[in-house]
Amino acid sequence: MILLADAKRGDIGNTSAAYARALFQVWGFDAATVNPYLGSDAVQPFLDYQDKGVFVLCRTSNPGAGDFQDLQVARHGAQPIPLYHQVALRAKEWNVHGNVGLVLGATYPSELAQVRELCPDLPFLVPGIGPQAGDLEQSVRCGTDARGRRAIINSSRGVIYASRGKDFAEAARSAAGRLRDSINGVLKSEGLAW
Amino acid sequence: MILLADAKRGDIGNTSAAYARALFQVWGFDAATVNPYLGSDAVQPFLDYQDKGVFVLCRTSNPGAGDFQDLQVARHGAQPIPLYHQVALRAKEWNVHGNVGLVLGATYPSELAQVRELCPDLPFLVPGIGPQAGDLEQSVRCGTDARGRRAIINSSRGVIYASRGKDFAEAARSAAGRLRDSINGVLKSEGLAW
Repeated sequence: MILLADAKRGDIGNTSAAYARALFQVWGFDAATVNPYLGSDAVQPFLDYQDKGVFVLCRTSNPGAGDFQDLQVARHGAQPIPLYHQVALRAKEWNVHGNVGLVLGATYPSELAQVRELCPDLPFLVPGIGPQAGDLEQSVRCGTDARGRRAIINSSRGVIYASRGKDFAEAARSAAGRLRDSINGVLKSEGLAW
Repeated sequence: MILLADAKRGDIGNTSAAYARALFQVWGFDAATVNPYLGSDAVQPFLDYQDKGVFVLCRTSNPGAGDFQDLQVARHGAQPIPLYHQVALRAKEWNVHGNVGLVLGATYPSELAQVRELCPDLPFLVPGIGPQAGDLEQSVRCGTDARGRRAIINSSRGVIYASRGKDFAEAARSAAGRLRDSINGVLKSEGLAW
C-alpha cells in the first residue's frame, strides 16, 4: 500500500525541511505533493529524500487553476509559454534522483496532454475524477505514457465517501474496484492492457 | 495578542474551506498566509472570513523566490510584468472585505518597494529579519505605507530561539523588545513615529 500525502507543502528551506521530515519520517508517507511558487529551495528538502516521491503542482484540477498557471511567461528569444509549462520544465531539471512527478487535473485533459508531451517519462498524479467531474477516459489516454503507464488516476471523495452508512468500507472498496476496472478498460481499448 | 498562522495553505476549494475552518475556527487564529498558485477559488474560502486576515504570498524571503515569482508575464497590449506584481494586483481585487494583505520578504527591499507602490494601502507581512539576514531599516522604509504603518516586520527564529537555555522566555521577550525599538527608531528618523 503506497501512501501519498496530498499536503501541497511549500515554504522556505528551513520550514520545508521540517515538513518533509514530518511527512516522510514521522508519518511514513511514501510521496507528497508540493507547491512550486516559492521556488527550487522550497522543493529541494523533499527531493533530498531519494526514495520518496515528490509530485509538483503543475496544472491543478480546480476551476481557478488557470488564474496564474495559464499566464504566458515571456522568454528571451523564444515564444512565451504558460507558467505551468515552465513549472513542468523545471520539474524535469529537479528530477536528478528519479523521484519527481507532476500533479495535473483530470478536469483539463488538453493541458494534461500538453504536459505529457513535454515530459514523456515523469509520473503524473491525476486528481479530479469523481465529484470534480474530470473525464476518466480522456485522463487515461492523455495522462499515461507511451506504454499506458505512469499515471495515477485518483479519486479521493468518490471512494472514501462512496457511502455515509455503515457499509462505508465495502462501498469504498467496490468504488475503488470499479475505478480500477474502468481505467483498465480504457487501457485495453488502447491495446495497452496490463 | 494577534495570532497569525504562517501556514501557506492553498488547495482546491473544498479542501481550502476545511483548512480555513481549522485555522480560524478550531485553532482560533486571527490571520493566515495563503499560496496563490492554485488561483482565486483556492483563496476564496479564507477571504470569506471577513473578520480574519489573509496574507497572500507575493515575493517571498527565500533564495529561490525569483525562480517563478520573477518570471515576466506577457500581457495583451501592455509591457510584461513579473508574476509577483500580477499576484499583488489580483490580491487587490480579492480585497472586497478589506481583509487581504501580502507577504513580501525583508530580504528583497527593492521588490518590497515596487509592491508598496502598486498597493499603497494593503497590510504587508515582512518576514526575513534575523537568521535570514533581511535588512531591517530598508524593510521599514520600503514596506510601510505613507504614514509609516501597515507593515508587520516579523522575526520568528530570532525571537523564539533567542536563547536555548532556561532563560528562553526572558531572552525572547528582550529580543522582541529590541526589534520593536529598532523599528520605532527607523520610523522616528523618518518623522513617522507613533
